Amino acid sequence: MKRNVYLEDIPLDEAQAVFQAALQAADWWQPLEAEEVPVAQANGRITARAVWAKLSSPHYHASAMDGYALRAQDSEGATETQPLQFTLVEEWDTTPSEPRPIRPVNTGHPLPPWANAVVMIEHTQLVELADGRSGIEIRASLPPWQHVRAMGEDMVATELVLPANHKLRPVDLGALAGSGHATVDVYRQPRVAVIPTGSELVSTEKVAESGIQPGQIIEYNSLVLAAQVAEWGGLPTRWPIVPDEFEAIQTAVRLAAQHHDLILLNAGSSAGSEDYTAHVVQSLGQLLVHGVAVRPGHPVILGILEDDKVTREQGDKVTNEPLTPSPLHPVTPSPFHLFTPIIGVPGYPVSAALTGEIFVEPLLARWQGLRPYQPPTIQAKLTRKVNSHTGDDDFVRVAVGEVNGRFVTTPISRGAGVITSLVRADGIVRIPRFSEGADAGSDVTVHLYRDARDLARTILAIGSHDLTLDLIAQFLAERSGARLASANVGSLGGLVALRRGECHLAGSHLLDPETGIYNQSYVRRYLPDEDVVLVTLVGREQGWLVPMGNPKNVQGWAAAARDDVQLVNRQRGAGTRVLLDYELGKLGIQPEQVRGYGREEYTHLAVAAAIVSGTADFGLGIQAAARALKLGFVPLAHEQYDLVMTRQTYASERVRSLLELLHDERFRTAVAALPGYDVSVMGKVVEINGR
Amino acid sequence: MKRNVYLEDIPLDEAQAVFQAALQAADWWQPLEAEEVPVAQANGRITARAVWAKLSSPHYHASAMDGYALRAQDSEGATETQPLQFTLVEEWDTTPSEPRPIRPVNTGHPLPPWANAVVMIEHTQLVELADGRSGIEIRASLPPWQHVRAMGEDMVATELVLPANHKLRPVDLGALAGSGHATVDVYRQPRVAVIPTGSELVSTEKVAESGIQPGQIIEYNSLVLAAQVAEWGGLPTRWPIVPDEFEAIQTAVRLAAQHHDLILLNAGSSAGSEDYTAHVVQSLGQLLVHGVAVRPGHPVILGILEDDKVTREQGDKVTNEPLTPSPLHPVTPSPFHLFTPIIGVPGYPVSAALTGEIFVEPLLARWQGLRPYQPPTIQAKLTRKVNSHTGDDDFVRVAVGEVNGRFVTTPISRGAGVITSLVRADGIVRIPRFSEGADAGSDVTVHLYRDARDLARTILAIGSHDLTLDLIAQFLAERSGARLASANVGSLGGLVALRRGECHLAGSHLLDPETGIYNQSYVRRYLPDEDVVLVTLVGREQGWLVPMGNPKNVQGWAAAARDDVQLVNRQRGAGTRVLLDYELGKLGIQPEQVRGYGREEYTHLAVAAAIVSGTADFGLGIQAAARALKLGFVPLAHEQYDLVMTRQTYASERVRSLLELLHDERFRTAVAALPGYDVSVMGKVVEINGR
Repeated sequence: MKRNVYLEDIPLDEAQAVFQAALQAADWWQPLEAEEVPVAQANGRITARAVWAKLSSPHYHASAMDGYALRAQDSEGATETQPLQFTLVEEWDTTPSEPRPIRPVNTGHPLPPWANAVVMIEHTQLVELADGRSGIEIRASLPPWQHVRAMGEDMVATELVLPANHKLRPVDLGALAGSGHATVDVYRQPRVAVIPTGSELVSTEKVAESGIQPGQIIEYNSLVLAAQVAEWGGLPTRWPIVPDEFEAIQTAVRLAAQHHDLILLNAGSSAGSEDYTAHVVQSLGQLLVHGVAVRPGHPVILGILEDDKVTREQGDKVTNEPLTPSPLHPVTPSPFHLFTPIIGVPGYPVSAALTGEIFVEPLLARWQGLRPYQPPTIQAKLTRKVNSHTGDDDFVRVAVGEVNGRFVTTPISRGAGVITSLVRADGIVRIPRFSEGADAGSDVTVHLYRDARDLARTILAIGSHDLTLDLIAQFLAERSGARLASANVGSLGGLVALRRGECHLAGSHLLDPETGIYNQSYVRRYLPDEDVVLVTLVGREQGWLVPMGNPKNVQGWAAAARDDVQLVNRQRGAGTRVLLDYELGKLGIQPEQVRGYGREEYTHLAVAAAIVSGTADFGLGIQAAARALKLGFVPLAHEQYDLVMTRQTYASERVRSLLELLHDERFRTAVAALPGYDVSVMGKVVEINGR
Repeated sequence: MKRNVYLEDIPLDEAQAVFQAALQAADWWQPLEAEEVPVAQANGRITARAVWAKLSSPHYHASAMDGYALRAQDSEGATETQPLQFTLVEEWDTTPSEPRPIRPVNTGHPLPPWANAVVMIEHTQLVELADGRSGIEIRASLPPWQHVRAMGEDMVATELVLPANHKLRPVDLGALAGSGHATVDVYRQPRVAVIPTGSELVSTEKVAESGIQPGQIIEYNSLVLAAQVAEWGGLPTRWPIVPDEFEAIQTAVRLAAQHHDLILLNAGSSAGSEDYTAHVVQSLGQLLVHGVAVRPGHPVILGILEDDKVTREQGDKVTNEPLTPSPLHPVTPSPFHLFTPIIGVPGYPVSAALTGEIFVEPLLARWQGLRPYQPPTIQAKLTRKVNSHTGDDDFVRVAVGEVNGRFVTTPISRGAGVITSLVRADGIVRIPRFSEGADAGSDVTVHLYRDARDLARTILAIGSHDLTLDLIAQFLAERSGARLASANVGSLGGLVALRRGECHLAGSHLLDPETGIYNQSYVRRYLPDEDVVLVTLVGREQGWLVPMGNPKNVQGWAAAARDDVQLVNRQRGAGTRVLLDYELGKLGIQPEQVRGYGREEYTHLAVAAAIVSGTADFGLGIQAAARALKLGFVPLAHEQYDLVMTRQTYASERVRSLLELLHDERFRTAVAALPGYDVSVMGKVVEINGR
């Protein structure tokens, strides 16, 4: 097995400069050619040149009202008491001989050539004239051009309608058409091939059909990358999954290079035994960069394919290769170009998505005459220390909340594999190279993924997690538009966050061993100077989570000390951990006696997952977690889960819809349906005034 | 000719409430049904229900590194000096008998069932074991689960992946697929028929083919409305133009009602002789509102079509009517519903676009489980008084600039016909009913159409207009991303705006009759206390604009006093007006002697347009305006056009790219190509220090 462990990481800005220089040398660092598209299909496209009006608007003198056209000078002297009478003339009469001609016109109608004003229909009266003909009487004189939209009033032919490099909006289509354009020149959309590689990959469709086996990985980076490309104005082609074979990948790349402006080759960009991207790029062009010092995302590859190699190799080696693209992906051939940039995108999903933002978006923007997208930013106080490798530009996903009129931000899981960390992120904090990180309490710049105004209606819950919080999030989203964001740090961690003003709510289920009362004594101890309100959310059952059927017959608290079973524990500060330690203490069981005591998970579901996977035999958790993962459950205790908040928050508009929800029958029914949940105590309020 | 002048305007909020109540009664004021779409096609769609994970991620214990899988406990005691040797075992060996088994794994591979840790390849050495087999040597002990991504580490099955009513982004597709979903339930997209009506309308395609006649109007509201609908998540169907005939419109509406969720009937919503919308709505259902007190936009119609009338009438009257939709617009039938809302949209383009924002967007949002779009807002100082009718909610289009660290805003043309006023608008100021307007200098809330950050790189030029400003706007857009916004108020108006801190630059060509020097004495008089810099933009030729061939032989300044020719003048404060008044004064010609002296236009092109249209015989203007509209030109004088700015602005980053442009050869060549333009003086700087 050939194993190449070499990866050379170069700084991000250097990598970007190398790539840009190579593209410049290849005449590819500039907007693509223009194409002419019908105005009706141009929304969202980018103008390739300035657009000048071909027609004036209006292109004739038009009536601005429903009424009658006349000569203003004929109306001189008309008054309320001395009305003037006009003679109705026919449309074909272009030089009327009547002394005071008048003609009905509706809004937008052209004025007769002899007229220069319009009187509103409301200010007229139909009369019979002395000669028996129909006439119109008016009772006030009109200035010339009254109620007339003169030719060119809105826009004069040759005026600038829109500049180049302008992203067309719906109203722009109106201005284009109104100034005489049936088509508009816009930049061609970049064609981007997204090629997933990996013998372990299976498509979502395949998984839906026939399930998934250990070792198989659902291929979804191509979904993310293709959707990114489309959002950034490109035309993505999602390739079928290519197995980890040099020839197969090379063939796919060759084919793609002949019909696309850019190739994204996903995974195989590292230096493992089955990582062929670098070799494929080298075989068909120049490998510019292999490894960029960004986190997450290290094994990024940047290269340029050369047309002569792409096509010559084709003749040399792959004689049976069809020259048409896969019928799944019909594309029209690109204008001939000698070079095709290629980006080897790392396989971890967060790395892949960030590689899109860092390398793909700026290139697509450049090709369409736009500046790279700059997300909006805010300043926020960091709630936890972030460590960073000094050599790397570090992109830290964060949650952001607005608490007491100030933004606070908390890092989310750092793992490159956790796509949900990007889903949940409100933004990114960039820790630059040469920095070792940022301290808790320091001010950081957050590049936002969502509208800052969303943050104003976000309730930030930090503390112990309960499934009810997910239900609250769902009900709030459906009803009020309020948003609940939650982070799991355990009950004690939540109270600490609340004390520091880093959240609105703390979910807590901390048992006071002396009184048997939940949370109150902890609130007094951890928030001694705060005016605090406890709102009971649910009562719920704690017990041993065990494999279905309880094969090792784990029963009672004492089972923790058995030497034939392996525990999975919760982290320090979690209410469940407090409960376990309390019960073990009562029985005089020492932590050292409990096998697996040191293995800590952060959620009920993570504990359940450890048991499902066979890495542990039992753990303390709630019945709903057992039900969710089809585990057995041995009930041990009832506990109370409260929402803790300051009185100020309790009284604020922000949490009102949440508090109302606790008295909503549909919501209570949904919670009561969770196994082991008791909603009879829901919405009970206890006020704790300082001490 | 039947003429119905009755229109009942009701307040906007009342109209919205009436419409909503009717939709509620018809069970239409709620999200549409869900439909299941492949994840690959779901970007931008809205989740119709919460999505819970079907699979854990990872769904097996996976190696997090390229390396070797082993049992952590086997590595106890390994050190740099006392390495431990492991025996390589085969993949099929699920219960290896070797004392220290080890197996190569790449990132993402499943761990063998007997292993619980991974050692990185970098920390190993391939060795030959005593028994001649291949082995791996390691030099440090590993904790259990080292470099292993345990099953469910990222996401546990049953966890909430995404809430309902969430607009899907590219990363969300990854989370959906990664949690085992091949499809997702999203709200069906609302189908919206956009029906343009009007016998005077012609399509852009027709105009491109065969030109346009007076009285014909280019139909483009349907382009704007359809693009709006698409941006707001709907599926628009653009109907072919329907002539102003009751039966034809009724037929189109009937047909559309059977295949769409909403009908937008454009124009004919007023009460003119050919306005059939209200009658059509009444014939097929209920007319709820006819006339809303919004400006622009009064003649809005809101109604509900009733299925029994839509289909019964079909049988009764229109026997030959095909029941399939127009082949141009293939649509699938809607789920059966008894009512179809219809909106009669006013014909003026600004009214039409605003009707979309006010009435269509909130409905489409509601149907897709979203809250109505709320544009971002800023506070800005109003530079000009805005008058408003007390009965109306008034939507005033405005330009916004950031000058000296504070936002200032200026109303743009109020005409409902000026689509470019929406194109140029940076935002809307809403003057509520019961208010008579807003005073100059007051603080107003601007609802922004563009990113507030765009405003930070916008150069606001107020004053006299010159074609060069359009070229600057175009060059800047192409190069630096800086934006030039300009408003025409004449040279003097520009200097006043500059004094008030309402713009960055004032374009000015004011002749001092005593010295023959341009602008300097005016700057000293109007900005006596300011440290000002004058930058010469161009020299240019002024002269009489006359019809081609100069049929009335207009020659010299004295021609102004002829009684057989009609002037079109510029507004007071315009540099061109100053020049005319100066020259007339020299000749002793009084304004009363000049026919048409009182007719004022605000731009060179507007003056030219007046001559093209035949409403005037001549006017003073620049040669480029004559050339643009194919007029004759009688040269009279050379003048200088300067950009006036404060020293602070001159030194600022904001205008740097503009100042650099004045020395750019390509730009100078483009300007020099304008007829009558002299670039030899371009970029000359004169500093005026207070007085």
